[in-house]
Amino acid sequence: MIPDPIKNFIALAAKLPGIGPRQATRIAFYLIRQGNTSLAQLAGAISRLETLKTCAQCFTPFEPAGLRNTSGLRNTNVYESTNRENEKSGLCHICSNPQRNQAVIAIVEKETDVLSLEKAKHFTGRYLVLGELAKDGVLESGQKLRLNHLKADIKKRFGGPPAGLGQAEEIIIAVNPSTVGAIEADIMAQELKPFAKKITRLGRGLPTGGEIEFADEDTLTGALENRR
Amino acid sequence: MIPDPIKNFIALAAKLPGIGPRQATRIAFYLIRQGNTSLAQLAGAISRLETLKTCAQCFTPFEPAGLRNTSGLRNTNVYESTNRENEKSGLCHICSNPQRNQAVIAIVEKETDVLSLEKAKHFTGRYLVLGELAKDGVLESGQKLRLNHLKADIKKRFGGPPAGLGQAEEIIIAVNPSTVGAIEADIMAQELKPFAKKITRLGRGLPTGGEIEFADEDTLTGALENRR
Repeated sequence: MIPDPIKNFIALAAKLPGIGPRQATRIAFYLIRQGNTSLAQLAGAISRLETLKTCAQCFTPFEPAGLRNTSGLRNTNVYESTNRENEKSGLCHICSNPQRNQAVIAIVEKETDVLSLEKAKHFTGRYLVLGELAKDGVLESGQKLRLNHLKADIKKRFGGPPAGLGQAEEIIIAVNPSTVGAIEADIMAQELKPFAKKITRLGRGLPTGGEIEFADEDTLTGALENRR
Repeated sequence: MIPDPIKNFIALAAKLPGIGPRQATRIAFYLIRQGNTSLAQLAGAISRLETLKTCAQCFTPFEPAGLRNTSGLRNTNVYESTNRENEKSGLCHICSNPQRNQAVIAIVEKETDVLSLEKAKHFTGRYLVLGELAKDGVLESGQKLRLNHLKADIKKRFGGPPAGLGQAEEIIIAVNPSTVGAIEADIMAQELKPFAKKITRLGRGLPTGGEIEFADEDTLTGALENRR
């Protein structure tokens, strides 16, 4: 009954985060109604994601410098050209930026967490994207590999550990403050202790616009401890 | 900060029904993580939607017969081959099916409503997809064109109206039973009256699994009127 191309699209789209078969069906008919130009545009936009590389150091996707010229939307920032050589070596614009402190590393779960922290324009170090933590509180093999990659990088870059000699300045374990996140943060802190002078977490407290009446005990404890 | 290909994808995906910029961003990074094969697959699936044609009679998208062979998933239904000539003339498999009663027409808002009604396997007529009704209760020009198209088709096919002579058997105004839907249904019923022996609406009542306690007054009125 449903034409094969629509069925095929629904099967793929229904796997995307937050989209089920019902919404995928609505999107399919919406796209068809929009016409062939819109279809070509969206297909092209998805194909263009293939041009992205994953940063060899922090694992966020980035656009290799050589390709950026073709985009038509190129950001002609001053330090970008000086970074181009580094970017060719497989590093993103944060990891290849000499103005960022490579000795301060924030470990985040998701690429979108990098975007959020960057928007705050306060952090001047670099990142390690770990991947979302599993609900069972156990690091997946890919996540362990990324942590080992960080350890190897610290050894190579700063010559350490042994402790106190050639460590990173600080590792901020910036995972979400859930129950699992807190457990995982403790495990990672233990494991990374020899590799940094300081291991920290993001501060806990009331969010902007938050109300004391509705804040949970953990949040209020954090807010009291971090009072200023 | 965000690579252009990701920005570009987010801008397009955020326009899809039920998807905002935040979910579009999550989908972008999810797709990139899935790797280039998945990206090519999804881009291909979207491009393949371009092969669909819109039925000249009911306005649902369908796969032209000539192309269906290439799909690898072809449904080798018996009457399909007999329909092929009709399909080449721009009609979908329902409008070109001699076993469907072309004198009974259900007017629905969305293509997905056709799918839902077909799943019930009870309706043997054909459809007219009108497009979603605007909240202001006024038919858009495209919707008026589709209604006029139906009127012209009834005239051509059955020679009518004048009333009583050469009309369609029945027009079911199967729009959603919202306040706007009810108003529009009244207007359409008035307008289409000369073109069909009967103008009907879908029955109102309790849905399967519905609870009397939580049903609104309209639903209960319908359920009482339609009691059996």
